[in-house]
Amino acid sequence: MSANNKKKVSTIISATWIYTSNSKNELLSNYSIVIKNDKIIDLVLQDEVFEKYEANEVYQLTDHIITPGLINTHTHVAMSLFKGFADDLPLQDWLNNYIWPAEKKFVNSQFVKEGSILALSEMIKSGITTYNDMYFFPDSTAEASKDLGIRSNIGLVVLDFPTNYASDPEDYLAKGFNFRDKWRNEDLISTSIAPHAPYSVSDKAFNLINTYSEELDINIHIHLHETILEIEDSIEKYGITPIQRLNNLGIIGPSMIAAHCVHLNEQDLSILTSNKVNIVHNPSSNMKLGSGIADVTKMLKQNLNVSLGTDSSASNNRLDIIEEMRLAALLIKGKTKSPELLSAVQAINMATINGAKALGLDSLIGSIEINKKADLISIDLNSITAQPIYNPLSTLVYSSSRSDVDYVWINGDIKLKDKKLINIDEDKIIQIAKKWQTKINQI
Amino acid sequence: MSANNKKKVSTIISATWIYTSNSKNELLSNYSIVIKNDKIIDLVLQDEVFEKYEANEVYQLTDHIITPGLINTHTHVAMSLFKGFADDLPLQDWLNNYIWPAEKKFVNSQFVKEGSILALSEMIKSGITTYNDMYFFPDSTAEASKDLGIRSNIGLVVLDFPTNYASDPEDYLAKGFNFRDKWRNEDLISTSIAPHAPYSVSDKAFNLINTYSEELDINIHIHLHETILEIEDSIEKYGITPIQRLNNLGIIGPSMIAAHCVHLNEQDLSILTSNKVNIVHNPSSNMKLGSGIADVTKMLKQNLNVSLGTDSSASNNRLDIIEEMRLAALLIKGKTKSPELLSAVQAINMATINGAKALGLDSLIGSIEINKKADLISIDLNSITAQPIYNPLSTLVYSSSRSDVDYVWINGDIKLKDKKLINIDEDKIIQIAKKWQTKINQI
Repeated sequence: MSANNKKKVSTIISATWIYTSNSKNELLSNYSIVIKNDKIIDLVLQDEVFEKYEANEVYQLTDHIITPGLINTHTHVAMSLFKGFADDLPLQDWLNNYIWPAEKKFVNSQFVKEGSILALSEMIKSGITTYNDMYFFPDSTAEASKDLGIRSNIGLVVLDFPTNYASDPEDYLAKGFNFRDKWRNEDLISTSIAPHAPYSVSDKAFNLINTYSEELDINIHIHLHETILEIEDSIEKYGITPIQRLNNLGIIGPSMIAAHCVHLNEQDLSILTSNKVNIVHNPSSNMKLGSGIADVTKMLKQNLNVSLGTDSSASNNRLDIIEEMRLAALLIKGKTKSPELLSAVQAINMATINGAKALGLDSLIGSIEINKKADLISIDLNSITAQPIYNPLSTLVYSSSRSDVDYVWINGDIKLKDKKLINIDEDKIIQIAKKWQTKINQI
Repeated sequence: MSANNKKKVSTIISATWIYTSNSKNELLSNYSIVIKNDKIIDLVLQDEVFEKYEANEVYQLTDHIITPGLINTHTHVAMSLFKGFADDLPLQDWLNNYIWPAEKKFVNSQFVKEGSILALSEMIKSGITTYNDMYFFPDSTAEASKDLGIRSNIGLVVLDFPTNYASDPEDYLAKGFNFRDKWRNEDLISTSIAPHAPYSVSDKAFNLINTYSEELDINIHIHLHETILEIEDSIEKYGITPIQRLNNLGIIGPSMIAAHCVHLNEQDLSILTSNKVNIVHNPSSNMKLGSGIADVTKMLKQNLNVSLGTDSSASNNRLDIIEEMRLAALLIKGKTKSPELLSAVQAINMATINGAKALGLDSLIGSIEINKKADLISIDLNSITAQPIYNPLSTLVYSSSRSDVDYVWINGDIKLKDKKLINIDEDKIIQIAKKWQTKINQI
């Protein structure tokens, strides 16, 4: 076949293993991914790819596994500047004496912009290509996201009480919708409404949110049943659990992304199930804050869509979905004493296609399939820590680390090459973080 | 001061932070460690070190934390060749249909030598400078240890049933004592007697071991209360728990290194406490095999010495004590819902000085103090994932990974330099692992 007959494409990535996260959980051996612009246009055997295609960029990744880009379904990226600021403390002490005073003193649009850049850099280096955020000053988060070219679903925060960002629920929502209008044509940015939690948002505000959410067909990102205390408080105040209260308010549905759900009684679980709520499991953060260990088995038995989140670096200290995959798989085994529960494949699906489903983006991302966006990562398994390899998915979840991620593509563009961020001065980001560290340390 | 007045030494290592693991948990800022031959001979402020000393090798590690070399207090290194061979399976299926048949078919002195080299390379790259092993063909493990220059405490396995290595308890012990005699003058190698577990060793064999252990003043490394099943079986067979049975046999004492102890009733805990037994916590392995989650809080409340282990790569898939530190700190918080329990400092002590105490080597290693052996590691904190740094110990435990370990010294000798193993061909080790992978895959 002459060169003229070959189809011109942007990028060809060939790898020893490609895990698709498709509905058949297919693992391809010695295949190539063919990308044109922002999309995957073909999946072909390596031996045949150059007969059909001619590419601007070619990657031959031997002893690598390619997976869909990882999705971090619950985080507050700007809080990376509080990473390690107040560890090993009781929850109320942590919040009342450290996090809230520090937020009051420091959080502004510059803090959010610079904290977000730090976090997004960490995430891309860790193989995360999409994140679901909830924080103040979303314009700054969006600017950082656009600068780095990462895919984001940005929450329009609603709280009952005033912060540096807004004064009351109406003000939060007005600012949120301004943000949404401003960024609506940005390819990589989508939005959700993010009422912080049942204990920090009134019935009145929930009713307002419910109206907007239905009108705009927008998903709702919320903290739900994170601690026993918030459930006890709700029962004392309303006579029912937060989930039961939100159900009565009619706000629970398939567009809800519920972070945590650590403590669920049978009725709570049944409400989540019948409403097809998306649950985000945050194992590290739930343990670190002493919230508990969620029983994901129960959720999976109900066929609930469970994805993974890091939560913020203030309560996890790492934005590392590979670590959350490993923990999700191990914790359920340890908690239930059933080593066969939550396999490596299931853990990877939680970090990819399940995350895409939660965000309502599964027609675009979450699996490696023709016509989906080229959000891809490669993990180097040619190492002493990975060998031997009996099953590369098991190797990825149980033996690999984010430090083995060496290439990242988002929307067809390369973002990490040989473990180095493209067009980003990592030293400069470190210097900016150090500047904030000095400031925040003076509190 | 003229050059002539300076004391000649081997190595000077200066770092931004040095965590000593000494009895005061001292964290030194901008200090230097002065090494002569295999020993730490001084700890001096960086600004003053070159006025006093002249060294062959000088390391200036800015934005690094130096800690004592990490101690892996429970493992079976040669089993690294089974890493990922049989994951996500019920325990009995895993043992009966995978691990035991594979051991019967493949384990010989070559397997142990080559599997050990793979494991020891992984451990040094992960900052582990001492390990406590239990496996067959200890000569091969010792040869690999000597080749790589890592510190080891090698268990002389005793089992009631025959294996490829020995036929009965007397045979295991005879082979073990031959091994001990052969290697007794090796500086970095010590030994223990390693009765596998109460369910695989008879009273008769324990009595024999007890005699030898007291005569030789040698520690005893054993699996203890790893699963609920073994406790139930013991109660059915003997009317008492394994710990109560071993106590009746008089074998429980301060020289015992008890791996796991996941399930303890009050009487078991009281026996361990009054006998000052050393407990090895193996959080990853205990979860992965569905054994459960040990309640380390209870042990710490009794002032028991608790150290950390990876167990083998067959049940963990990584020989990574930094991961076990993080998990130990997180799990206890999640299990007890008390975020203030098990601080970063305590986790690091479990991985260093507590491990040294368990092995009876705390006069030599486990902390950075004058006259101790120079077993040291450095962790690079000059990264996006580490910033900002409010407390470097918290950063190490919660944000860092073994991939941030960039220098390792054992007994004063450099073993890892800028993340590369010294004098070891990593590619060759990978190739040998792949050869075994092909063989074992055919089972």
